[in-house]
Amino acid sequence: MFLTDTWYVAARSDEVTADHPLGRTICRKPIVMYRDATGAVAALDDFCPHRGLPLSMGTVREGLLTCGYHGLVVGRDGCTVSMPAQRVQGFPRIHSFPVLERHGFIWIWPGEASRADPSRMPDYAWQGNPAWAYGGGLYHVKADYRLMIDNLMDLTHETWVHAASIGQSEIDETPCETMVEGDEVITRRLMQGVRAPHFWNEALGWAGLQKDVPVDRWQVCRFTPPSHILIEVGVAHAGTGGAAAPAEHKVYGIVVDFITPETDGSMWYFWGMARNFCPNDETLTERIREGQGAIFAQDLAILERQQANLAAFPDRRILKLDIDAGGVRSRRVIERLLAAEQAGAPGPT
Amino acid sequence: MFLTDTWYVAARSDEVTADHPLGRTICRKPIVMYRDATGAVAALDDFCPHRGLPLSMGTVREGLLTCGYHGLVVGRDGCTVSMPAQRVQGFPRIHSFPVLERHGFIWIWPGEASRADPSRMPDYAWQGNPAWAYGGGLYHVKADYRLMIDNLMDLTHETWVHAASIGQSEIDETPCETMVEGDEVITRRLMQGVRAPHFWNEALGWAGLQKDVPVDRWQVCRFTPPSHILIEVGVAHAGTGGAAAPAEHKVYGIVVDFITPETDGSMWYFWGMARNFCPNDETLTERIREGQGAIFAQDLAILERQQANLAAFPDRRILKLDIDAGGVRSRRVIERLLAAEQAGAPGPT
Amino acid sequence: MFLTDTWYVAARSDEVTADHPLGRTICRKPIVMYRDATGAVAALDDFCPHRGLPLSMGTVREGLLTCGYHGLVVGRDGCTVSMPAQRVQGFPRIHSFPVLERHGFIWIWPGEASRADPSRMPDYAWQGNPAWAYGGGLYHVKADYRLMIDNLMDLTHETWVHAASIGQSEIDETPCETMVEGDEVITRRLMQGVRAPHFWNEALGWAGLQKDVPVDRWQVCRFTPPSHILIEVGVAHAGTGGAAAPAEHKVYGIVVDFITPETDGSMWYFWGMARNFCPNDETLTERIREGQGAIFAQDLAILERQQANLAAFPDRRILKLDIDAGGVRSRRVIERLLAAEQAGAPGPT
Repeated sequence: MFLTDTWYVAARSDEVTADHPLGRTICRKPIVMYRDATGAVAALDDFCPHRGLPLSMGTVREGLLTCGYHGLVVGRDGCTVSMPAQRVQGFPRIHSFPVLERHGFIWIWPGEASRADPSRMPDYAWQGNPAWAYGGGLYHVKADYRLMIDNLMDLTHETWVHAASIGQSEIDETPCETMVEGDEVITRRLMQGVRAPHFWNEALGWAGLQKDVPVDRWQVCRFTPPSHILIEVGVAHAGTGGAAAPAEHKVYGIVVDFITPETDGSMWYFWGMARNFCPNDETLTERIREGQGAIFAQDLAILERQQANLAAFPDRRILKLDIDAGGVRSRRVIERLLAAEQAGAPGPT
Repeated sequence: MFLTDTWYVAARSDEVTADHPLGRTICRKPIVMYRDATGAVAALDDFCPHRGLPLSMGTVREGLLTCGYHGLVVGRDGCTVSMPAQRVQGFPRIHSFPVLERHGFIWIWPGEASRADPSRMPDYAWQGNPAWAYGGGLYHVKADYRLMIDNLMDLTHETWVHAASIGQSEIDETPCETMVEGDEVITRRLMQGVRAPHFWNEALGWAGLQKDVPVDRWQVCRFTPPSHILIEVGVAHAGTGGAAAPAEHKVYGIVVDFITPETDGSMWYFWGMARNFCPNDETLTERIREGQGAIFAQDLAILERQQANLAAFPDRRILKLDIDAGGVRSRRVIERLLAAEQAGAPGPT
Repeated sequence: MFLTDTWYVAARSDEVTADHPLGRTICRKPIVMYRDATGAVAALDDFCPHRGLPLSMGTVREGLLTCGYHGLVVGRDGCTVSMPAQRVQGFPRIHSFPVLERHGFIWIWPGEASRADPSRMPDYAWQGNPAWAYGGGLYHVKADYRLMIDNLMDLTHETWVHAASIGQSEIDETPCETMVEGDEVITRRLMQGVRAPHFWNEALGWAGLQKDVPVDRWQVCRFTPPSHILIEVGVAHAGTGGAAAPAEHKVYGIVVDFITPETDGSMWYFWGMARNFCPNDETLTERIREGQGAIFAQDLAILERQQANLAAFPDRRILKLDIDAGGVRSRRVIERLLAAEQAGAPGPT
């Protein structure tokens, strides 16, 4: 129940090297990634055509992926290049996945390769922009990837799951507004004249702005297919304009969530935060990364137990409340696109 | 293959508090238990009607069970009481299990609630009686609960499994007598003029009676549905009347076994011992508890391997010998009551 | 997919004692082995006919296998000998497997006992010969036993998997010759005038021969049903006659591989090396054993990942190249004998 004719994040750029191949299952497909002699990333079936060993157990030698069992060498197109003392013309080609390196990540198109379209890769303004800094990590989560979409498109859970860090009761108390624009779903919540929660009060301080004063706080969650969610989050001194306030009155950032199905019941969760304050403070980047990692580990525990419990109560349906609108509509977008993909139509643009 | 229209022990009283809910699967049903504002125990489906998270991951706030994901509050009747910024009238009710607190345990009726009958709760003379002391524990055992019934209704295994503590060859050598009285099965063994095994010789000493003399030893195992077994065990100085001997010549107690199916292949085993000697000696209570825990851990290892081996040899039948009569007849009582339960008739009284 | 009317190695001789029974699954059959009062090994269903406990949880008392649950005693013929206070004539007999102790191993015939034929036990010249020494070990490998046959009948993998110990590029570069002789498959590779790899260069030194000179190296893999592979491996000073060189110019040994299926996806792998140099040097025996254990652990890792990957790509076929001829033909012998076995014909002789 996931799209495949689309770009998914398969790895961080720094995970894929010219020395050791990396094996990772994406959309049920075991894939091996490595860098060739030009430094370009390649992605292939993680399956040696000779005896079926995972190629990720092998090595990269002068830019060529070499099986660790009998030395078969495979090219980035999936064709066997050589094997000691063997003629390799008749060897079956293994699948070569369309792959792009963008925004600090390796993106893979697990579906029909002929439909892969680099122009359908999303663009992110904060990438490569010196006014911004980015830090993040990767979690493996044993849950359907859509439970993470539900989680991120409804932030009222912060009050309960993240009470000690970013939660506050005003999130629950403030209605959210959900909009669908084409394939995009947006859930917006504005809290006016509230106390800044711990993280944001600190952020005001880090940015050299006044702390411990009432703020206007905003959260704008933006889902785009297949399962990427960017959340603009910030606070401004109360009454200065909120998200539109001048820079000397606000701090904000973008929570970046790239969600990639591994199997029907598990996902790779690439999380991070891009911020436009103190972009050169690497200590702060690491501090935020650690804090966010701890917060998102709380979600991980919730989602894994939720997944197991839904399996234990197979006859129950879960509710779709107002606060769930973001997740519900995002799932509808996925379902619509899935139907189109299965009918052979081009995917989202 | 277990009765459900009946009372099972689900927890020790001290396991269920007003702070943290307790999740436990009983008869394949995940159940959450907690104490409400009055201190009374409630038992519900361990499933939040909103997004399916186990409610046992939540908290109890002022006697109300609150989900840890979005703050849904559920009442002891299974109806949603409130949820931040949501109208909850239409929320589906989750199942509220009939629950009683008796004899230091929480008892749950996992079956049809309308048939739950507090008068069918068994009564135990030793509970609340100052002449008796009780100590016990809980084991999770990966085996069909009926293997534990077989084990406890045939104590010849003590000679082999518990040779170093309570076993003695005279158990094997002395025939047992098995009787069925209604839904109750009783297996009785009397050993006359034997050496007291280690535990009982010590017990004579603890009670201030003469040690190291011949004794008459008795074991009376009593099965009652659904799967409770009480075993009166004791020794008396030989020739003074056995179980009927005057108090200055005997020590005895009741091994208490409440067996609760978790799944088809696993159980909760609440074990303990009630004794009527030295009731105020808490050090002795703890010492007996530790010894009994070690002995019953030997049974646990046996049963788990037995369960796995029966699965490895699916075409074999196990024998039903004289010594197995207690278990065989107890299983027959269960089968008869199960047939009645499935036909909709009232259960055991 | 394995033969059963044949002899498999079930244990090393020193694993089976007169004190503790040993349980081990062979060809999907849980088997208990022990030594009786005469020191002879017996092998039975690991299943007590009374309540199904594994007999390997019991004890051996004066040469009799005794169940650890209720003291049932079973004879080496599978008939119950006694049980405390029970008449045992009617007890079902459990299967007694034909068993032989030869060459330092316990051999079991898991199939039809009436067809068991001691004359079909293979013979090994190095056993009991004072000019030879033997050392070895046992690995449990979660892979189809035939993947180990493929591995051992094609040693080109040494170049890649064992590069640091016994691998060298000349193995890949030298064609091998594969022959089928009845039920036996032989793969032979001769490398002339090569550098001796680390292990063999050392071996020349251990044997007191000149090191660091060109050698002729040979590897002769010999498969015999059901799944035994002996590999004669050695080096001789170049030009002195190779395997036929006089003793003062060569060192060689036999890699002994007894492969026993446990289940369809796992095996017991009894590995070792018999050598005819320095036979009395026990320190050397242990040193070789450790080195070989480390090398074969590399194969273990390969095979387990290969097994898992073949399951992850169920629609792929693996290639059968020239270098794979040894494995391919060995599998064909097994298939032919399996068809005969299933048709009820006598097995290999």
